[in-house]
Amino acid sequence: MQADLPPAAACVAGIDVGGTSLRVALADETGTILARWGGSTVGVRTPESVIRMMCEGVRKTLSQAGISAAALKAVGAGVPGITDTENGMVIATSYLMGWRNVPLRSCLEQELNVPAAVDNDVNLAAVGESWLGAAQQSRDFVFMAIGTGVGAGIVLDGHLYRGSCWAAGEVGYMLLPGTAVIPARSDEPGALESLLGGEGIRAQWEQRWCAEKTQLPKTLSATEIFDHAGDGEPLARAILCESATLLAYAIYDITRILNCPLFVLGGSVGLHPALGEATRAILEKWKLRQGPRVMQSALGADAQLLGAIRAALDVAGVRSQSVVSPAK
Amino acid sequence: MQADLPPAAACVAGIDVGGTSLRVALADETGTILARWGGSTVGVRTPESVIRMMCEGVRKTLSQAGISAAALKAVGAGVPGITDTENGMVIATSYLMGWRNVPLRSCLEQELNVPAAVDNDVNLAAVGESWLGAAQQSRDFVFMAIGTGVGAGIVLDGHLYRGSCWAAGEVGYMLLPGTAVIPARSDEPGALESLLGGEGIRAQWEQRWCAEKTQLPKTLSATEIFDHAGDGEPLARAILCESATLLAYAIYDITRILNCPLFVLGGSVGLHPALGEATRAILEKWKLRQGPRVMQSALGADAQLLGAIRAALDVAGVRSQSVVSPAK
Repeated sequence: MQADLPPAAACVAGIDVGGTSLRVALADETGTILARWGGSTVGVRTPESVIRMMCEGVRKTLSQAGISAAALKAVGAGVPGITDTENGMVIATSYLMGWRNVPLRSCLEQELNVPAAVDNDVNLAAVGESWLGAAQQSRDFVFMAIGTGVGAGIVLDGHLYRGSCWAAGEVGYMLLPGTAVIPARSDEPGALESLLGGEGIRAQWEQRWCAEKTQLPKTLSATEIFDHAGDGEPLARAILCESATLLAYAIYDITRILNCPLFVLGGSVGLHPALGEATRAILEKWKLRQGPRVMQSALGADAQLLGAIRAALDVAGVRSQSVVSPAK
Repeated sequence: MQADLPPAAACVAGIDVGGTSLRVALADETGTILARWGGSTVGVRTPESVIRMMCEGVRKTLSQAGISAAALKAVGAGVPGITDTENGMVIATSYLMGWRNVPLRSCLEQELNVPAAVDNDVNLAAVGESWLGAAQQSRDFVFMAIGTGVGAGIVLDGHLYRGSCWAAGEVGYMLLPGTAVIPARSDEPGALESLLGGEGIRAQWEQRWCAEKTQLPKTLSATEIFDHAGDGEPLARAILCESATLLAYAIYDITRILNCPLFVLGGSVGLHPALGEATRAILEKWKLRQGPRVMQSALGADAQLLGAIRAALDVAGVRSQSVVSPAK
């Protein structure tokens, strides 16, 4: 989506804060990306240092694109945590970052001197998919982010549903057949997440690996395991099949509760085509009367970033043609 | 709630169609019930015969209260099935009744010559609890009906959430730790329902009963089993504990998805205080950071009926003070 356009008259920046990286993209009002910047957040954990990196990233994309700071109309930022979008406050991030009640929106506004919007990163990915991705025209869908963590962005009647305390979509904590039978503590990975998340898949491979069973190395990433499953490697296939079964349980339960017709899979693990394919096969085998469609994210790793850009356009007052607005 | 009021100037009727009984209540605009009528639907299954019974019930309550048909302003009816409230159509009832695409609203309007509203019975129970029961002032809550079937009425942001095809809240089909691992067909009881519903609890008792283990009879109803659990009978206690654990799983998963702070338990099994108490004890043991409150229905068996009355008042144009409106 990198474009060779002349410098835009007005632009916004989207920021995506991940577990190990921070990405910034500058875009015009169509979502065309004018410049990108990325940095590692390994060892960068405090709100002050992460916010400093965010602002640095925004300034670098502006200079990269040759656009003056005056042309920047707003920024949007997605963070991996429970976020009060009304007050612009990150209530809590996952156990990895450990933020509590960080007034991220006002910090960004003060530093960059433009209006800002902040939200949970998975919610913003749902907004991105709705705007320019796999869920255009869908008034009801669930974006399932499966990476290191597992979470959902839930869109109902054309609006993000955030829950009474901004904590909707914490599906990685669901208890399902085959998971733990006692909920995980909030400072540890959830029951579903600890099996279906990237770390969980990797750990299962390592636990079940032995030289007699497979010629593959003991240390593989989740996506490498799924690649080998696609090639028919038996142990990798077994792990893929169990992951897909868990994902099918989660999708089935969510759709029985919400009667939601579309699930969009994203995140580094969720984007792997073998997982989507195996999950669809299980749901089809169950012969559900109104089974949901399960699609892959159309925006891939850019879903969050484009959702953040859409949120920034919204606060900048640029109308959206998309079904879902990030506004509550 | 039976009152000795003088005949009201204007009134509405609420109708609740259950698996084995049909109940009608005539009420004024405050929800004060002026007359009641009930009949058995055993052997009465076709839409024509059930609708005939509904209209007969409404006429009987009018004559019982000494109110002329002209004073009846509207009727509301709750049915155990997937209901399109916009078109007044019962899309499908449970496997017991077997209705498909019945234009219930227009049938009632034609027969009774007043506007009608129709909805799923559990949705109406949620409306009732919101209007006059345990969920007054709650903008987000889930009414869990646990009787022969298991279903939920979901209220989000002050509105019933009905799903993209009117089938939200089918929580009796959820797959959880300890349930079946393959979804039930739509013409059979759901995986959770077949264990937590009244029939499921009764069947578990019968399967595990033996004369050496208990002095109680082999045939007991779910509520009788829970009564004995309260008295400390070991087999009954074990079954109560398993039922409460399943209910706690369902509540936990729903609250992780929806971040919903309140669950109201209703239905003949759900109303049993021992089940609510045991479920709360499990949730407390889990030490959740933001655990939901679990309350008993305040309206008991009248929740659906009062929700139907509220729906009738809405179509009659009588404004509601309650948070939740039955209108979509």
